Amino acid sequence: MEITMYYIGIDLGGTNIAAGLVSEDGTILSSASVPTLKERHWSEIIKDMADLVRRVVAESGHTLEEIAAVGIGCPGSVDKANGVVVYSNNIVMHNVPVAEEFRKYIDLPVFLENDANAAALGEYAAFGEGVDSFVFMTLGTGVGGGIILNGKVWSGFNGAGAEIGHQTLVFGGEKCTCGRKGCLEAYASVTALIRQTKEAMEGHPASMMNAWFEQKGRITGRTAFECAKLGDPTAIAVRDRYIEYVAEGICSIVNVLQPEILAIGGGISREGDTLLAPIKAYFAENDYNKHMKKTDIRIAKLFGDAGIVGAAMAAEAGLKG
Amino acid sequence: MEITMYYIGIDLGGTNIAAGLVSEDGTILSSASVPTLKERHWSEIIKDMADLVRRVVAESGHTLEEIAAVGIGCPGSVDKANGVVVYSNNIVMHNVPVAEEFRKYIDLPVFLENDANAAALGEYAAFGEGVDSFVFMTLGTGVGGGIILNGKVWSGFNGAGAEIGHQTLVFGGEKCTCGRKGCLEAYASVTALIRQTKEAMEGHPASMMNAWFEQKGRITGRTAFECAKLGDPTAIAVRDRYIEYVAEGICSIVNVLQPEILAIGGGISREGDTLLAPIKAYFAENDYNKHMKKTDIRIAKLFGDAGIVGAAMAAEAGLKG
Repeated sequence: MEITMYYIGIDLGGTNIAAGLVSEDGTILSSASVPTLKERHWSEIIKDMADLVRRVVAESGHTLEEIAAVGIGCPGSVDKANGVVVYSNNIVMHNVPVAEEFRKYIDLPVFLENDANAAALGEYAAFGEGVDSFVFMTLGTGVGGGIILNGKVWSGFNGAGAEIGHQTLVFGGEKCTCGRKGCLEAYASVTALIRQTKEAMEGHPASMMNAWFEQKGRITGRTAFECAKLGDPTAIAVRDRYIEYVAEGICSIVNVLQPEILAIGGGISREGDTLLAPIKAYFAENDYNKHMKKTDIRIAKLFGDAGIVGAAMAAEAGLKG
Repeated sequence: MEITMYYIGIDLGGTNIAAGLVSEDGTILSSASVPTLKERHWSEIIKDMADLVRRVVAESGHTLEEIAAVGIGCPGSVDKANGVVVYSNNIVMHNVPVAEEFRKYIDLPVFLENDANAAALGEYAAFGEGVDSFVFMTLGTGVGGGIILNGKVWSGFNGAGAEIGHQTLVFGGEKCTCGRKGCLEAYASVTALIRQTKEAMEGHPASMMNAWFEQKGRITGRTAFECAKLGDPTAIAVRDRYIEYVAEGICSIVNVLQPEILAIGGGISREGDTLLAPIKAYFAENDYNKHMKKTDIRIAKLFGDAGIVGAAMAAEAGLKG
């Protein structure tokens, strides 16, 4: 009799720690989260992670004996071989032995993965194992993502990839969080869209976006998209230019990697076809590849769950070596 | 007794067809070339390829019985599984069964590879098999290259990658040969450097580059580099800006892929340290990865021989499946 095994996926974020009990096919059976309170010492954060895992397992009706391994998606630079967060800026960690510390509480195999790469692995699982190669691009506070080739995360010889938000889009352009100028992230992140929205509002006081702001009290990544739907020409211009930035970034990564599927995630991806249709049209026109089968551009599927599922899949992959 | 096997590598270029007898470790033992005369029908070109191979083998003192397989580096989009050039613009080919046609003359296993990917495989062989991941970037008429991951060419799910010259460098910038605007190729190719040189000469009639042109009769990729060495400030500005374009492109590809080695080839790479030292300095400053081991940026080793060696290595890889 084959025993069904489960995996634990932990998404260690700057705001919350989320954990889930995940089946081999990538379905979350039970999950919960607690605040990270990231100013604390890392040992307290890891203790809370272990407590959260015990709770999730208990609430699922399963036991720790049914768990094959634990995966943790961590921000920053991760030394996967040794289970160490080498450096994280978000939750301050410098050479922290996360796996070893976690195993003081729960004695199971523990595998670390960079959080963006873990999310890519989660989305990859959601798209199905028949996919040869996969790129995940998140449009959030930054532009992040991950690359899956032959079913495995590709993060470089050093584990420091795949920073797809840090390809150049505009040589010498807007300052990026990474210190360089003109990265894709500085144009295609939600942060950048908000900046673009504000600039357009200042230049066009009659734009509907100014009234929207007065009503809602804040400018978000949705401001331009919503006012564009209502026909505001300034909002349409902001939205369309933003979409062009994203589409250019997609052309660049596809020209290099030609993945079978490229999925777009992050908050903005909830715009669905409003975002996807013009990107697909731009891509069809501008992709270098004119003669072979083309990359399929899609909206991601898991949204906030990608981190949990992907961390669990990283645990599964780690166990298989 | 183990029998030493050899491979034939053929580099099918727009000007010449070059072929070589190559040992398993990537050493060329014998080689020769003939003009492609690319306006001819492809069947005549392929017949010449086979004649050239017979000649190279005969001149080497070996026999066709010692050849394990033939690799052909072809321009354009290549269907490796079927040995077909799907589309080439340089030597006009549309769905040409190159492998099948070649085997009418020489009955050996034949494997096709895109010429840029083949060159990458050749350079990879020259750097040694211990290298985990490798990116080759050629600065020539265009900017091309290839990606080797886990010892194999990565060219996407469709074989259409890795067009590393067609990442965006300047959104909406100079028109590129691919139809898009602002690709790295439109700034970092020799063609682009010549354009940048001419523009600077027009803007600065007193520049030494104008005298250089009058003496030499033409402007090349070396004009700015040579006059910069002589201290001409306009030439120094052209050279330094060009190097910055190349370095930005390298940062973009490394941020995504983090290969163990990135090697720069093509005519400009003969400038050696004049090119490499400032690129390494720029990269050290601008690479996203600040905490893990860094990609080693190098000058390529094989120059014109990369295509032959790489095609032979593609044959070896093809035979191994």
